[in-house]
Amino acid sequence: MYLRLLDKHIHHGRLHLHLPSGVRSFGDGGPEAHWFVRDRRTIARILLDPGLELGETYLDGRWTVGEGELLPLLEILLRDFDQPGDGMTRWFTPMWRLLRQWNRVGRSYRNVARHYDLDEWLFRRFLDRDMQYSCAYFTTPGMSLEDAQRAKCRHLMGKLLLEPGQQVLDIGCGWGGLAMFLAEHAGVHVTGLTLSREQLRVANERARHRGLQDRVEFRLADYREHTGHYDRIVSVGMFEHVGAPYHRRFMQRVSELLLPDGVAVLHTIGRGGPPTTTNSWIHRHIFPGGYIPALSELSRALEPESLMVCDLEVLRLHYALTLESWLERFSAQRSAIAGRLGERFCRMWEFYLAICAASFRWSDLVVFQMQMTHHHHIVPTTRDYLYRPVDAPATGRILHSVPR
Amino acid sequence: MYLRLLDKHIHHGRLHLHLPSGVRSFGDGGPEAHWFVRDRRTIARILLDPGLELGETYLDGRWTVGEGELLPLLEILLRDFDQPGDGMTRWFTPMWRLLRQWNRVGRSYRNVARHYDLDEWLFRRFLDRDMQYSCAYFTTPGMSLEDAQRAKCRHLMGKLLLEPGQQVLDIGCGWGGLAMFLAEHAGVHVTGLTLSREQLRVANERARHRGLQDRVEFRLADYREHTGHYDRIVSVGMFEHVGAPYHRRFMQRVSELLLPDGVAVLHTIGRGGPPTTTNSWIHRHIFPGGYIPALSELSRALEPESLMVCDLEVLRLHYALTLESWLERFSAQRSAIAGRLGERFCRMWEFYLAICAASFRWSDLVVFQMQMTHHHHIVPTTRDYLYRPVDAPATGRILHSVPR
Repeated sequence: MYLRLLDKHIHHGRLHLHLPSGVRSFGDGGPEAHWFVRDRRTIARILLDPGLELGETYLDGRWTVGEGELLPLLEILLRDFDQPGDGMTRWFTPMWRLLRQWNRVGRSYRNVARHYDLDEWLFRRFLDRDMQYSCAYFTTPGMSLEDAQRAKCRHLMGKLLLEPGQQVLDIGCGWGGLAMFLAEHAGVHVTGLTLSREQLRVANERARHRGLQDRVEFRLADYREHTGHYDRIVSVGMFEHVGAPYHRRFMQRVSELLLPDGVAVLHTIGRGGPPTTTNSWIHRHIFPGGYIPALSELSRALEPESLMVCDLEVLRLHYALTLESWLERFSAQRSAIAGRLGERFCRMWEFYLAICAASFRWSDLVVFQMQMTHHHHIVPTTRDYLYRPVDAPATGRILHSVPR
Repeated sequence: MYLRLLDKHIHHGRLHLHLPSGVRSFGDGGPEAHWFVRDRRTIARILLDPGLELGETYLDGRWTVGEGELLPLLEILLRDFDQPGDGMTRWFTPMWRLLRQWNRVGRSYRNVARHYDLDEWLFRRFLDRDMQYSCAYFTTPGMSLEDAQRAKCRHLMGKLLLEPGQQVLDIGCGWGGLAMFLAEHAGVHVTGLTLSREQLRVANERARHRGLQDRVEFRLADYREHTGHYDRIVSVGMFEHVGAPYHRRFMQRVSELLLPDGVAVLHTIGRGGPPTTTNSWIHRHIFPGGYIPALSELSRALEPESLMVCDLEVLRLHYALTLESWLERFSAQRSAIAGRLGERFCRMWEFYLAICAASFRWSDLVVFQMQMTHHHHIVPTTRDYLYRPVDAPATGRILHSVPR
């Protein structure tokens, strides 16, 4: 049965399925992968619930791949099987979905600790030197990850329209890379919020080391706990942890924390298609409580607030490149990571990075960069201010916008 | 009672209310306007239902303004009174709202005839020479309307990523200005759809006159009636007439008519805030069946289709400038227009242009330019291709996008 299924679906790659009973090959194009599966029962298990069991069976060591072929295998499977409404992305009941994301403050701290309190040592193995753990921005072919992460910071800085001396809030500041970049390049003061004690420790240490302790300030606080008024708010790769039941609460907080003439930029993974559930394997092992919003969900959460969207950039493929680069670095250090954290952990993270890379290339995952203000006239009326040469003046043209 | 209300609300302008009983002044800032109202009963009527009665009482000649002060008056009233959920933008029952927009094909033809079958002579009085009846794109301060309409065409041409010889569909082509621009500047073949016999006649005449009859083709057809497959689809200022009950149907048609590697650009008035009803005066006199979508409605209509958003530009204030320019031209030709079409018609159109200009400056109205494709990799991964000098090569950079 599954042989016919594979025969029918595999078009964009060449898949060699190795079973104890022999080898069968499917498809004839693109990337090639050898898939060594322990037994037919494993394939049956995967077909019953691919979104969960493809990863589970890999963790359990029930299948493996040829050298460096995890990503090509997942790309072949994802591209040829992933249809909206079935397979990897099929619906759960809305109630179940909402309960899994009922991220009250205490639970949010626990969810974050699960992932981000992992040893700094691990993240230093595969991230860029500045430890940016979010989608980079590749502006030229073959750009390095380091450069693309810096380009991301610069692009966000442009959208924030910063002026020296302004107060900036960074919700979900990670290890402080963006906050320090903005303080150094735009002369602003940045307050960074994280829920991870480990990130807080590392961010503070790095700021001291770079002599920035007067211009950046990191706090262990949830977006619902923090108070104040800011000229600018930025949030990168954090909204994915908010959960659908709290989308409106998040937008409400941004609206409250932002001064009347302020600018906010939200950078979050999003879906090009309709709302659906988080992949259950990712939810179980990587991001408990996480949820990837569709544009309709983002805008519905935003519209009742006095905030309005001034610009929405949809970054496509940039996260595929970012994740491919992380996976490559991770794989290069595989034996060290397996030695310290165990073989099973290693497989879990390889699978996570590879399935996400494949999804950003072939599924409907994108990154939304949404620029928001309280009023029409705060940001320039044309977007060319974002696309000037790096050494041109950074301020944008604000046409026809002086309130009369 | 209403005197206290005006006293409380007027902050951003100076309003002189002239009644038979005397003059009272309110506010102390910004623009100034003299409002000559026939009697107190007229004010009571307006306060009961401002969204409808402000316009009705003007048409009935129950109030007037000082020379050139219609726009300032409406700006003062709109800016200081317009709150989401009340006054001009308050809700009707959803059922009533949907029934008003039940735009089946036959009704759509009738709705369009009401407005666009008006004499070409009228539109030539206040539009630019190319007869672009939609939001222009002002890229430099003080740009003329003619230049801004050409800049709009060029900006749309950039987003469409045209290649010579491609087949382009223009849904809602008006008098053919954009279609002819694309045919001339990008060497494509354009099919334009309109529901107005008068627009069809004028568009055909203009195309013959410019020797473009082989490269543009205009048809009297609804988006639901037309069939075919196109490399590119553009729709400018037409989606506002579709009506909420047909938003999904429209997106479905675009998805069906667009080839797999095609690009579509939708240019439509939109709301920065949550969904609400069309202003009832506008609905009664200017655009029967019209409805202005919020972003959440646009995206909800789009997401079930295989189309995805690649970019969303939110044009703020550009339509205020466009309408201000139309109003100025209209006023300059007022006596000719009143002579031909009557004083009441003249007031109706002045009020329409002025209330819309005020709304685009002070209310939550914007223009969405939404670029859509079936796949991730069709359009460039960065948006700088839109911001190159005019004489640079027009093709965009498409990074990392070759399917493997």
